[in-house]
Amino acid sequence: MDYKNEKLFEEKVFKDPVHRYIHVRDKVIWDVIGTREFQRLRRIKQLGTTYLVFHGAEHTRFQHSLGVYEIVRRIIDDGFSGRAEWNDEERLLTMCAALLHDLGHGPFSHAFEKVFTLDHELFTQAILTGDTEVNAVLRRVSPDFPQKVADVIGKTYPDKLVVSLISSQIDADRMDYLQRDAYYTGVSYGHFDMERILRVMRPEEEQVVIKFSGMHAVEDYIMSRYQMYWQVYFHPVSRSAEVILMKILHRAKDLHNTGYAFRYDPVPFKPFFNRVIELEDYISLDENILMTYFQWWRKEDDAILSDLCNRFLDRQLFQYAEFEPATEYRKIGELERLFKEAGIDPEYYLVADSSSDLPYDFYRTGEENERVPIYLQMRNGELRELSRSSEIVEAISGKRRTDHKIYFPEDLLESGKDENPLYGKILELLKN
Amino acid sequence: MDYKNEKLFEEKVFKDPVHRYIHVRDKVIWDVIGTREFQRLRRIKQLGTTYLVFHGAEHTRFQHSLGVYEIVRRIIDDGFSGRAEWNDEERLLTMCAALLHDLGHGPFSHAFEKVFTLDHELFTQAILTGDTEVNAVLRRVSPDFPQKVADVIGKTYPDKLVVSLISSQIDADRMDYLQRDAYYTGVSYGHFDMERILRVMRPEEEQVVIKFSGMHAVEDYIMSRYQMYWQVYFHPVSRSAEVILMKILHRAKDLHNTGYAFRYDPVPFKPFFNRVIELEDYISLDENILMTYFQWWRKEDDAILSDLCNRFLDRQLFQYAEFEPATEYRKIGELERLFKEAGIDPEYYLVADSSSDLPYDFYRTGEENERVPIYLQMRNGELRELSRSSEIVEAISGKRRTDHKIYFPEDLLESGKDENPLYGKILELLKN
Amino acid sequence: MDYKNEKLFEEKVFKDPVHRYIHVRDKVIWDVIGTREFQRLRRIKQLGTTYLVFHGAEHTRFQHSLGVYEIVRRIIDDGFSGRAEWNDEERLLTMCAALLHDLGHGPFSHAFEKVFTLDHELFTQAILTGDTEVNAVLRRVSPDFPQKVADVIGKTYPDKLVVSLISSQIDADRMDYLQRDAYYTGVSYGHFDMERILRVMRPEEEQVVIKFSGMHAVEDYIMSRYQMYWQVYFHPVSRSAEVILMKILHRAKDLHNTGYAFRYDPVPFKPFFNRVIELEDYISLDENILMTYFQWWRKEDDAILSDLCNRFLDRQLFQYAEFEPATEYRKIGELERLFKEAGIDPEYYLVADSSSDLPYDFYRTGEENERVPIYLQMRNGELRELSRSSEIVEAISGKRRTDHKIYFPEDLLESGKDENPLYGKILELLKN
Amino acid sequence: MDYKNEKLFEEKVFKDPVHRYIHVRDKVIWDVIGTREFQRLRRIKQLGTTYLVFHGAEHTRFQHSLGVYEIVRRIIDDGFSGRAEWNDEERLLTMCAALLHDLGHGPFSHAFEKVFTLDHELFTQAILTGDTEVNAVLRRVSPDFPQKVADVIGKTYPDKLVVSLISSQIDADRMDYLQRDAYYTGVSYGHFDMERILRVMRPEEEQVVIKFSGMHAVEDYIMSRYQMYWQVYFHPVSRSAEVILMKILHRAKDLHNTGYAFRYDPVPFKPFFNRVIELEDYISLDENILMTYFQWWRKEDDAILSDLCNRFLDRQLFQYAEFEPATEYRKIGELERLFKEAGIDPEYYLVADSSSDLPYDFYRTGEENERVPIYLQMRNGELRELSRSSEIVEAISGKRRTDHKIYFPEDLLESGKDENPLYGKILELLKN
Repeated sequence: MDYKNEKLFEEKVFKDPVHRYIHVRDKVIWDVIGTREFQRLRRIKQLGTTYLVFHGAEHTRFQHSLGVYEIVRRIIDDGFSGRAEWNDEERLLTMCAALLHDLGHGPFSHAFEKVFTLDHELFTQAILTGDTEVNAVLRRVSPDFPQKVADVIGKTYPDKLVVSLISSQIDADRMDYLQRDAYYTGVSYGHFDMERILRVMRPEEEQVVIKFSGMHAVEDYIMSRYQMYWQVYFHPVSRSAEVILMKILHRAKDLHNTGYAFRYDPVPFKPFFNRVIELEDYISLDENILMTYFQWWRKEDDAILSDLCNRFLDRQLFQYAEFEPATEYRKIGELERLFKEAGIDPEYYLVADSSSDLPYDFYRTGEENERVPIYLQMRNGELRELSRSSEIVEAISGKRRTDHKIYFPEDLLESGKDENPLYGKILELLKN
Repeated sequence: MDYKNEKLFEEKVFKDPVHRYIHVRDKVIWDVIGTREFQRLRRIKQLGTTYLVFHGAEHTRFQHSLGVYEIVRRIIDDGFSGRAEWNDEERLLTMCAALLHDLGHGPFSHAFEKVFTLDHELFTQAILTGDTEVNAVLRRVSPDFPQKVADVIGKTYPDKLVVSLISSQIDADRMDYLQRDAYYTGVSYGHFDMERILRVMRPEEEQVVIKFSGMHAVEDYIMSRYQMYWQVYFHPVSRSAEVILMKILHRAKDLHNTGYAFRYDPVPFKPFFNRVIELEDYISLDENILMTYFQWWRKEDDAILSDLCNRFLDRQLFQYAEFEPATEYRKIGELERLFKEAGIDPEYYLVADSSSDLPYDFYRTGEENERVPIYLQMRNGELRELSRSSEIVEAISGKRRTDHKIYFPEDLLESGKDENPLYGKILELLKN
Repeated sequence: MDYKNEKLFEEKVFKDPVHRYIHVRDKVIWDVIGTREFQRLRRIKQLGTTYLVFHGAEHTRFQHSLGVYEIVRRIIDDGFSGRAEWNDEERLLTMCAALLHDLGHGPFSHAFEKVFTLDHELFTQAILTGDTEVNAVLRRVSPDFPQKVADVIGKTYPDKLVVSLISSQIDADRMDYLQRDAYYTGVSYGHFDMERILRVMRPEEEQVVIKFSGMHAVEDYIMSRYQMYWQVYFHPVSRSAEVILMKILHRAKDLHNTGYAFRYDPVPFKPFFNRVIELEDYISLDENILMTYFQWWRKEDDAILSDLCNRFLDRQLFQYAEFEPATEYRKIGELERLFKEAGIDPEYYLVADSSSDLPYDFYRTGEENERVPIYLQMRNGELRELSRSSEIVEAISGKRRTDHKIYFPEDLLESGKDENPLYGKILELLKN
Repeated sequence: MDYKNEKLFEEKVFKDPVHRYIHVRDKVIWDVIGTREFQRLRRIKQLGTTYLVFHGAEHTRFQHSLGVYEIVRRIIDDGFSGRAEWNDEERLLTMCAALLHDLGHGPFSHAFEKVFTLDHELFTQAILTGDTEVNAVLRRVSPDFPQKVADVIGKTYPDKLVVSLISSQIDADRMDYLQRDAYYTGVSYGHFDMERILRVMRPEEEQVVIKFSGMHAVEDYIMSRYQMYWQVYFHPVSRSAEVILMKILHRAKDLHNTGYAFRYDPVPFKPFFNRVIELEDYISLDENILMTYFQWWRKEDDAILSDLCNRFLDRQLFQYAEFEPATEYRKIGELERLFKEAGIDPEYYLVADSSSDLPYDFYRTGEENERVPIYLQMRNGELRELSRSSEIVEAISGKRRTDHKIYFPEDLLESGKDENPLYGKILELLKN
């Protein structure tokens, strides 16, 4: 039989706390899961540093990827198959794209990317089309199949309906991560009636639309997203941990660039310090390696690197204060000056960080990065953009909310303020 | 105020998926949680290799330890306080012992201990009483407090009631891990009505007893335990991963001992290879370091070490066959001979493994390792051992169930059997 | 011991699916629960006709009342006791008011009240202060205790903090029913983190306020409320059942008033038909009696009464169409005319019904029926009205949403349209 | 299209707390649900008097019947369709039998049956094959279809596989009620992994068997059943309510037979008192009518009838004592004598009641009422009776456990013991 249609002799199942069971019948899917590059996702946490606030959040991109695959599988097999608008040829392609959409994520994804100015989406493309195990499996389907998978993930694939299942404002990716992150953190947000949403999804030429009767389930989903962003993803303490993590990588890079002699040679980091990165360098990297070096760097002579590593590993994080950039830039200048005067490097110990989210956006032609809106299918067949029917969604549409904080080592300043009056002055300035 | 009675200005809470919230009011508890040695438990998984079968099982000993603490706190604060049999002086001690009972666990606990013949309980004692941050915190309570905590965990503390809350057949440790492991694996076993059990627990002089009306809740707990053992803890595939893990460590030790020149010097392992272990060597070790070396050892010249590391990281595990040692020892001998003849080292590729559990045991005087049974408190006040009232418990009491399996690389044998007839012969022998 | 402080020898618990356990230690509470008037609430459904849409919604006002009591008990015993603003003298009073707040509800509460222009709040007062078992229990606390309980429920009690626990925009009543109704209907809305809300509630002089850090939990609660209203409480099919129910009662009353000779004498209804109602008449009535008469009235000679009873019991409900009163009043006139011409009484078979909700309202001085808003307690102690901090709540504040529908027997019209062209004409008009 | 294959234009769903959604695509199923006889099941509680102990247990046979249908539908549509052993012709028949298996249940099923020596299974047959709406629907499938449905329910249908889905030791009926009763009572027992069981069910010629790998899920199911029986179904207080209910019916019958002039003529009961029951008499009866008469009989002159009705409605139940018939028959005799002497009729006020359950039974040829055991399908295809593989099941197999209690009005005796020394004597005898 054709490899792309080959079924396993007996269906395989993964026990999954979120979807109960994840079902695999297609041989291609099974083989993809078994590749080294996909198994690597077991060693990358879904929520980076969030586990330092919500101790349950140790779950990985591996299980999230399986979850996205399962949602897409259910949409196609239980809802779309046989519908006129849906092209069954693209079933395997869509499921592979779902499974592999996060393949290029590096350790502590966003922090690592930011420090080394990388883009995980490019790595996803590179792994799919490079000399890898996963490429070998996909190529067996057809020579252009790896590129097609990459195109769906990169949103350049011509069939927009397929793309919209993987990335849109109500896609399988978000539906999985909201539920999964809620489950593992234990928060009560993040629940919505996915089963209902799957039942009211309808394929249309360009994207998935939602039957009008499912509007309230979608409202619930959008509210979930809103709550998860502000309660979990942008939690100020988790951002503190991320700030420290970035400063560790930053410091190590600076030390390397200035010829510091590391006690523990940072071999796996060098390609990133030097910006000459082979695909293999990237694939071999995972969070275990970073954490291992952080352990070792505790013992480095450089006081900043050592201190930051201790802080990260022993969860002695920075404290934070509210901070309004538009009006308080002078205060920051003053603080930086004081930090320097007090002998604390503000580059590493006085860090401004902003979080921002646009909970739902309707279409505004001509804008960059336009996001495809969610459409409701009314009883008469007409499509109507969600926020025109839902007053809750209307209320939060297109409103970007931003939160600015400034992070600093309060513990250090507090314990030293009796000896060093500058410390006290800094604290006073920070707290008012 | 006395440190041991000091309360936090405002109660701290941890969001926990299992107990919803974990509450900390005592300053001592808060300080213990902040120590480096306790934070280290974040880097040790609760269920070792189980995540390779149940992908949700990434949870750590850190959160389990908090969970055990929270259960003990509820038992004492909501149930025992004010009861005649309970001595409130021991409240803090019991909570500290609950929090710290797993402090000495190493990476992949049982596997690591087995290969290097260590005992995590001794390390728990050593960390509590050695030159550590946690010792410094506990010593502030009183000079003998660290030793007292160690005694409760080591079961030598004179007040048996305190000991029984931490380790008995119905202790806070088990109540937490059954529920927690069920939650993270997603299995439907592991549920029992803990709230009910906490309500029917009564302190008695020597141990906790259960009001008769709570018998069925306890039955449910024991059945949960039974199911979790056979469905999760002894899952044959998870044991396969553990077998490989042990063989990696075993191989590395052997290579070291025979003077093999590692491409990646196994610095953190050397104290264990050489059996000269400082406390600091042990505390610095965690699962990230092991996983980092496994990554590096993939590239070692030694084919066995490299292959086993690839298998572990990419989840290419061994298959297994049932095996009855009493009657099939000859078969094992024959298999070993064939493996050697085929050029596959049976030491690493033909591994017998047994799991065994005694779901509940009543007291039999004079036996070693006697386990304290669970007592029901009848309406007339009399105590009666559980299995005398519960026919379900009676049915499984004292019955040790054992499961023997033999693990081997079926993939290797299958793919080579056309070229090497010995491989085919081995497979045939293994499968019948 | 004083009756009001008397405790049960052993705490009693009710197993409750929503709160897990409901705890009773106070003798007064136990005695109140045992009264005939409170037990009567077992025979009145919490959600009236909703069970005809959500078949799980058979739960009663009895269990809701216990639930409200339990929430209030937890707020007081776990959160308020010992706080300066809270007066512990009023503990029992508040718990009794919580338990008894729905005491005067009649069968199918709102429908019955509407048809006979009654007010359940007056009956609550009457039962509390009349010659009843519950009055006898409360009087044992003190002679003015029954009146005090009535005052709290009637919102005239001087201590507004006590009143606000039972009725405000975030009271125990709502917190129980949202969760309970969600549980029994099985919908995924209605979940919010009550445990968190209880933890952030703070007593203030005039009302309960919410610590700022709990804002998101309150947002979630308000969104739950919003979703439950539109998904469950105003479900158009449930309203159809309620329309029929009201029309049954209406018809029976009209028949009685016009001297119709009932085959089954409506003895228990006569006081209501004649508007001479003794307290005992009201207390004896329950949903069983109504349903029994509906069964019997199936066999009445009056075709309308009989048909409506068949429809209600066998769930052959009316269908509905959207209807906009402001612009479509002429259409209604036309429909009424056509109904009459076709020999169908529009009084009973063409029914306009509107639902309307104000999800959250902030305070606007000078308006009637002003609702006390929810206040957040900011970090600096200042109180701030919720919608000034929460953009989600702001978005839906003070916006009344109304839904108009017109109900009619589509089945009848459809089955007769071939014989009677008027039926077809009516259908056409209704559907466009 | 053939009626039996007709599908609804759009699938209908019922929101169900236990199975989330119940799906109906077949027109026949939809029509059956709409019949008067099926809708009647809304007025019969699933658990009779249990709501007087577990206040959540107000759920009805209507929703249980839908649940059993849904389980069977999933088994067939998701698991059996296309398998060689399964005959798809029988799909509709099996689903109808599932839906209608409880059709003949009367109000407070077992109690009512016992007092009037009726058999609900005969009524199920009678309703299916009599002049009823449900018969009319089924006849449209084919003239012998109503009888076939009756045969499946009556276990005389030739295809034993079909029968075993509806009634065997692991049938859809039990799987629904265990979960449903657990959900509505709120107990933590009753959970098992139904999804897993459905996945491991295999059709065999004579019955459903279970793949060996699903053994532990089945163990969990059997333990659930065991716990539910003893914790919920045989709860001594619920039995007390049932005892009183039976005594009410019993008393009314006796009064009727001895010519007592009822103030409220028991019209709907007369056919049962006189044992001349038309099908229509039975169908018209429901729990509302019984409860209505109980309300009215409170005011009857007969002191016993009135007292028992007050007790039932106001939940002033009988207390109970343990009682061992084999050894204590003399005590009962003595008690009866004392009751008579004290002027309390022991026929109504001293009631022995026994509960007994056989949690699982294996096959014993030649016994009456033999129960088909559960078979596991081993890896080699061989079938093995469950208790031969499962030691837990083995432990409880074939062991009948019986619980005897004697019920009496302790309140009456207590309150009168100071005036009547016989009362004290009775109490003393009962409590020792």
